[in-house]
Amino acid sequence: MENKFAERLTGVDGSATREIFKLLANPAIISFAGGNPAPESFPKKDLADFAADILMKSGETVLQYGTTRGIKPLIGEIIKLAEADGIKAAEENVLVISGSSQGIELMAKSFINKGDTILVESPTFVGALQTFKTFQPNMVAVDTDDGGILLDDLEKKIKQHQPKFLYVIPTFQNPSGVTLVADRRKKLVEICAANGVKVLEDDPYASLRYSGEPLKPLKSFDTDGTVIRLMSFSKTISPGLRVGAAIGDAEIIRKFEICKQGIDVHTNNLAQAMVYEYIHSGKFQPHIEEIKAAYKQKRDVMREMIAEYFPKNVKVSPCDGGLFLWLTLPEGINTLDLLKTAVTQNVAFVPGTHFFAHGGHDNTLRLNFSMVSEAKIREGIKTLGGVITESL
Amino acid sequence: MENKFAERLTGVDGSATREIFKLLANPAIISFAGGNPAPESFPKKDLADFAADILMKSGETVLQYGTTRGIKPLIGEIIKLAEADGIKAAEENVLVISGSSQGIELMAKSFINKGDTILVESPTFVGALQTFKTFQPNMVAVDTDDGGILLDDLEKKIKQHQPKFLYVIPTFQNPSGVTLVADRRKKLVEICAANGVKVLEDDPYASLRYSGEPLKPLKSFDTDGTVIRLMSFSKTISPGLRVGAAIGDAEIIRKFEICKQGIDVHTNNLAQAMVYEYIHSGKFQPHIEEIKAAYKQKRDVMREMIAEYFPKNVKVSPCDGGLFLWLTLPEGINTLDLLKTAVTQNVAFVPGTHFFAHGGHDNTLRLNFSMVSEAKIREGIKTLGGVITESL
Repeated sequence: MENKFAERLTGVDGSATREIFKLLANPAIISFAGGNPAPESFPKKDLADFAADILMKSGETVLQYGTTRGIKPLIGEIIKLAEADGIKAAEENVLVISGSSQGIELMAKSFINKGDTILVESPTFVGALQTFKTFQPNMVAVDTDDGGILLDDLEKKIKQHQPKFLYVIPTFQNPSGVTLVADRRKKLVEICAANGVKVLEDDPYASLRYSGEPLKPLKSFDTDGTVIRLMSFSKTISPGLRVGAAIGDAEIIRKFEICKQGIDVHTNNLAQAMVYEYIHSGKFQPHIEEIKAAYKQKRDVMREMIAEYFPKNVKVSPCDGGLFLWLTLPEGINTLDLLKTAVTQNVAFVPGTHFFAHGGHDNTLRLNFSMVSEAKIREGIKTLGGVITESL
Repeated sequence: MENKFAERLTGVDGSATREIFKLLANPAIISFAGGNPAPESFPKKDLADFAADILMKSGETVLQYGTTRGIKPLIGEIIKLAEADGIKAAEENVLVISGSSQGIELMAKSFINKGDTILVESPTFVGALQTFKTFQPNMVAVDTDDGGILLDDLEKKIKQHQPKFLYVIPTFQNPSGVTLVADRRKKLVEICAANGVKVLEDDPYASLRYSGEPLKPLKSFDTDGTVIRLMSFSKTISPGLRVGAAIGDAEIIRKFEICKQGIDVHTNNLAQAMVYEYIHSGKFQPHIEEIKAAYKQKRDVMREMIAEYFPKNVKVSPCDGGLFLWLTLPEGINTLDLLKTAVTQNVAFVPGTHFFAHGGHDNTLRLNFSMVSEAKIREGIKTLGGVITESL
């Protein structure tokens, strides 16, 4: 019997993500292709204790249906974390979500009519591109440089297209590692507010800073409900628990909540309670410091090895935090082909073209440094340097 | 700043669900309004032990990102449960989902273009109605009687509207408690298959049978990928964990998987592992027997009390299992008004009109018997009997 699928799935085949997962699955390969935190960083002992304790003490409520909005103690902690970032939020402004990427789906579902224009960074998170596509928007890419979104290009494209919203990962961006510089942040929010364009601020890497000064989130410059901020505990506690938060205008958060009712009713209560206990116990901030020390070391080693073993005409984008380095190879090199060769030598990365709304940029690639050991980083980058040198 | 929400949310305000939750929140009220399992039924001690054990032994994988498809051991158990129901499934036919209601969203997202017709039972699950509405279909209600969907009406409406799919809760339906009788099951699948209409079989209550003979699921009669079956562990282990499964044609399950990538990437790994361990340990089937004994007693008490205290012209639909009794009061009584009076006397229920795609049926109501104690059932039904008698 023929399957008459909805139009919205035409051309959405999940192949990029699938290929990345395949590269991660082969244990012989040193894979810089993932976006995963280091498994040894997970506080499994603390989480095991909290899980057992929560279930014994509050099993009757934690195992029962919960409200779509999320459990109140966790919402309270999220409000405090937002305050520390210069964001004022009340309960009506917060929705607990099942990982911050659920916020992308909720934003798309709440705002996009087929054919509406939305703006995305060039490059941007491949998962967001796929999610957006299922809502059939006109996706327009805004140019970026080593300081993030170019405000001139943003203004130009807003005037040209009257977009519904801008999707931006302002800090240690995925895939580029680049951070939207301080003097563009407030201005970006002002430009969008003045033009009635919402901003979806996806900021899962913000607390993983290894160098430079902390910057205020876009949401802290918001005065009229322009910015919806997505927070994640995937990179700082555990991605497997699927807990994040959306913070925004109360009316928007209510629409997100209505959409979330259909999507999963509510986020797993036990995971919410575990994240709450972990933050509330005071273990969260010291844990972030530990992760940062470990990832900084890995980033430094990867950059040193690239400097030593990669051809000098390979450009590495600036990276003060997060999980990724972004490389631009000389024009003419196709990283999809390069990957095929690299895999035969047991090294993998993600070709950059997957991260562009309209493809192209065939000479770019993304490297993840969080999940691979220091020794494997040394070995893998040396090998990859050889593969690149040979391809030139 | 004005919020220019997507068209799909027009008229979707989540108010019915919200009202039900409000009625549950007031501890003074004896609420028959919920659809929750009994909190004392949750195996919290076993789940606490499993959770701690899983995190200590496999924290590195359970706390990491997982695949969208779900963890393999759980998929294996789901295949075995399906087999016991007469359903042949391979790994490619199974997707772990975050509660069976996520399967409704995935079906809608995978199949519905704006304006497509879908068929629903009359009445049906209010959450499904709300989810479907956000995809802007033409919703057509199929008539039912005490044996479930009327096949003549189904055939008529298929010819008339060429629907994409039929949404059906065949066993101990929510809200009606009614079961699609044996001799309509195979025939229903054949009618749909012959006309190229998919069947979304939502069957979360099937294992909670208190009387009568077990019936084979619709999926067991499927020969060509017509039926997508949704299973849930919410009523048999815990709803707070948000774990269910979709079983169907491999191509359809792959589309569901692509849609799920955006929705939550994957279902919480710890919850999946806890459900797996609970089933695999052999505790699951005896636990279901315990729940059934407790709920049967509650159902019996509620029916006895209704027989004793309700006017004789109140019709109670047949109920061999699940969580609900469905009442039809004499014409002219409006249960929305009745609820207002009942709440002043500290009893609540859900007015039936919320469960109809196009409203009406103002003289119907739904009673939940799983979550209230036997003593409270006696007290609440007696009170409600008085309220109804006075309204006549």
